[in-house]
Amino acid sequence: MPAPLSGVTILDLTHVLAGPFCSTTLLDLGAHVIKVERPATGDDTRAFPPFVQGQSAYFAALNAGKQSIALDLKSPPDRAIFEALLVRADILLENYRPGVMERLGYGYDFLRTKHPRLIYGAVSGFGHSGPDAAKPAYDMVVQARGGVMSITGEEGGPPVRVGASIGDIVAGMYLAQGVLAALYAREKTGTGAKIDIAMLDAQIPIQEHALAITTATGEAPKPTGARHPTITPFSTFRTADGFVVIAAGNDALFAKLCATLGLDQSDPRFATNTARCDNVHLLKRLIESTTLTASTDHWIATFEAAGIPTGRVQTMAEALHDPQLIARNMFLPVQPNGTGPAFTAAGNPIKMSTLPEATSRPPAPALNGDRAAILNWLQSDP
Amino acid sequence: MPAPLSGVTILDLTHVLAGPFCSTTLLDLGAHVIKVERPATGDDTRAFPPFVQGQSAYFAALNAGKQSIALDLKSPPDRAIFEALLVRADILLENYRPGVMERLGYGYDFLRTKHPRLIYGAVSGFGHSGPDAAKPAYDMVVQARGGVMSITGEEGGPPVRVGASIGDIVAGMYLAQGVLAALYAREKTGTGAKIDIAMLDAQIPIQEHALAITTATGEAPKPTGARHPTITPFSTFRTADGFVVIAAGNDALFAKLCATLGLDQSDPRFATNTARCDNVHLLKRLIESTTLTASTDHWIATFEAAGIPTGRVQTMAEALHDPQLIARNMFLPVQPNGTGPAFTAAGNPIKMSTLPEATSRPPAPALNGDRAAILNWLQSDP
Repeated sequence: MPAPLSGVTILDLTHVLAGPFCSTTLLDLGAHVIKVERPATGDDTRAFPPFVQGQSAYFAALNAGKQSIALDLKSPPDRAIFEALLVRADILLENYRPGVMERLGYGYDFLRTKHPRLIYGAVSGFGHSGPDAAKPAYDMVVQARGGVMSITGEEGGPPVRVGASIGDIVAGMYLAQGVLAALYAREKTGTGAKIDIAMLDAQIPIQEHALAITTATGEAPKPTGARHPTITPFSTFRTADGFVVIAAGNDALFAKLCATLGLDQSDPRFATNTARCDNVHLLKRLIESTTLTASTDHWIATFEAAGIPTGRVQTMAEALHDPQLIARNMFLPVQPNGTGPAFTAAGNPIKMSTLPEATSRPPAPALNGDRAAILNWLQSDP
Repeated sequence: MPAPLSGVTILDLTHVLAGPFCSTTLLDLGAHVIKVERPATGDDTRAFPPFVQGQSAYFAALNAGKQSIALDLKSPPDRAIFEALLVRADILLENYRPGVMERLGYGYDFLRTKHPRLIYGAVSGFGHSGPDAAKPAYDMVVQARGGVMSITGEEGGPPVRVGASIGDIVAGMYLAQGVLAALYAREKTGTGAKIDIAMLDAQIPIQEHALAITTATGEAPKPTGARHPTITPFSTFRTADGFVVIAAGNDALFAKLCATLGLDQSDPRFATNTARCDNVHLLKRLIESTTLTASTDHWIATFEAAGIPTGRVQTMAEALHDPQLIARNMFLPVQPNGTGPAFTAAGNPIKMSTLPEATSRPPAPALNGDRAAILNWLQSDP
C-alpha cells in the first residue's frame, strides 16, 4: 500500500518555521519535498542555535528527509531550473511577504495560466488581503496581537508568551489542511487552487473559549496561571516533590476526588462546578494541604487507581523518556548526513492504517546538496 | 466551483473539543457534518458556560452549521439508523476511549469489512496503542505531561497552562490532516483508512525548539515569561500605558531598533544575538527606559515606520475590533436557531481561491433537531 501522498511533489520555497512545519507534515504523509533555498546562506534556521558539531539541531529536526537545491530566482539559468521544477510539481509553498512572488514573476495569477493543476500554498503574517497585509510579523507579534498572550500567565501577572511557537505552527497546520483539501478537490475538478493563510487569523479559532466568553459576557478572560478558567478543580497542585495535575472535569470525577482526599463533597462551597469556580483558591489550599504530604509518584498512582484524570508536569527532558511517547515513536533519530552529527526529531503524530510507522528519519540536506540528483530527475520521464 | 469537500458526508460521534474542532474545519471546507449525539444530554458542551438565554455560547460557536441526530447506540432501532448512515458516510469521527467502539460492535476492523471506503478518524488522550492507551486524559493532562507547561510561564516561576486548549486543538488539527490525506488517497486506491491521533503525541512536534535544545544540550529549556528563549530582543516591553512587542529577529532589525531608540549598537554586550541573549535583562531595562516614556500607540507607529516587527498585546475584546481580523472575516455572526440568541464564532482561517468566503455561520443544531430531515435524506437516492 503506497503512503497517502505517494507521488506528490512539493516545491518548498519556505523557510524558518510555519512553512517547513507544513512541508514536514506532508512529507510524513508520503510526499516528495524539494526545498528551494537561497544560495550561500539557505534557510535562516541553518544558523539557529543549538548547534552540534557546527550544525543546527533546529534545522536538522525540521528538515529531515527533504531535498535541497539552491536557486537564485533572479538569475536566468536558475529560473529555468525553477520553471522546469514547476512543471513537475503538484504543490508550491511560499512564505514571503505578499507581492514578492509577483515581483519575481511567479504570482499565482500568472502561474495558474501555465500550470492549472498547481496548488499554491502561501503563509504570511497577516495574509494577502486587509490593511496590514504588507506588514512584517513574527510568532511573537501574532501571539500578542491575536490574544493568546492575554490569557496565558500568572493570575494578576503580565502577559506571557506560549512556550511553543504556536503563532507559526498553527498557521503551518492550517496551510497543510488547505493543501490537502485542494489535492482531494483536484482529483474531482482537475484544477489547483491558491491557499492564503495568515498567522494572525490562525490564532482566533484556537481561542474558542476566550471568544465565547468575550462575546457572551462582554468581558475578556484573563490569565489564570496553571488552572482552567471555568472548570474546577482542573489545575496543577503542589506535592512534596513537585506538581501533580488533577483534572476533575465533572461532578462524578469531583466525587471520586473527595473520596480519595477525604474532602466533604456536600460542602455547599464545592457542590457544583460554579461554586467550585467561585471558591477556587480555597479549594486549592484544601487539596494542597493533602497533596503536599506525599510525592508526585504517590499521587499519580492514587489518582489513577481512583479513575481521576491526572499526570505529571514534565520537561522535554522527561518527556523524552516517557514510555507512552516512546511506544508511539514520537522521538525519532535523524540519521547523520555524511560524517555529521545525529539529531533527534519529533515523530509523525498522524498514525494511519495505510502509512507504515517510521522509526527513524533520513538526514536533513546540506545546502544545495541534492542539486545533481534533482537536475537528473528533471531529465527523467515524468 | 464547488467547495473542496463538497459531497463529503461526515458522521461525527465526537464531543467537547478535539473532535468538534476537526469537524468544523472539514465543514468549513464544504463537508456535510451529521453530529450523532447521546439522547437526553447530547454533547457535554451544551452544558458549558457561558450561556446566553440558557444556551451555551461555547457549544454554539463550535457546532454552527452541523446537523444533529440523537441516537442510543445500544438500542436496536437507533443502531439500524446509525448503520444506514454508515452506508452514506465518507468519514466517521469518534473520540471515545480505545475499545468503546469495539464494544458497540463498530470497531474499525469490523466496519472496514462492510464499508471498505469508510475513513475512520479517532482522537483520544493517549492513542490506540502503548501502555497508557486506556487512561483518561484532558487538555490539562497532556499540556502538563507533553512538556508545553514546563516552557510557559514567568522566568523562575511555576509552570503555567497555555490559555488556549492546545492539547485538544492541535490533536483535532492533526486528525483533520489525516482525514484529508485519506480522502485524497481513497481517490487513488478506492479504500479508506483508520486514523489514530493521540493528544499527547500531538504536543511533541509543536515543541520543535524545546526538543532541539534538550537533545542537543542535554538540558531542557525553562519558562522565559514573555520573551523568546534564544532570540533577543524578542519580547513585550512596558510602555506608558501598557505593552508593545518588539521582535528584532536578526542583526539588521536590531540595528534599526538601535537607530530608533538611540541605543549603541557597537556595545559589545549587544553586538550579536548571542551577546544580547547573555545580557537580555540589561537590554530590557535599557529599552524600557525609553519605551516607558510614551504610549503603546506611539511606539507601534514609530516601530512600524522603522520597519521593525511590532504589535500590541490584545485581549480577545480588543482583537474583536482589529481591522485586519475583521477584513479577513475572522469573526462570524452565528444566526439564531429559531427564536434563540445569536452568537459569534471564529471564521475560517483557510482562505482558498476555490472556496467562497463566508460572512456568517448557520445556527448550531438543537439536540436531535435534524432527525426528521436526516431520516428523510436516508430515504433519498444516494
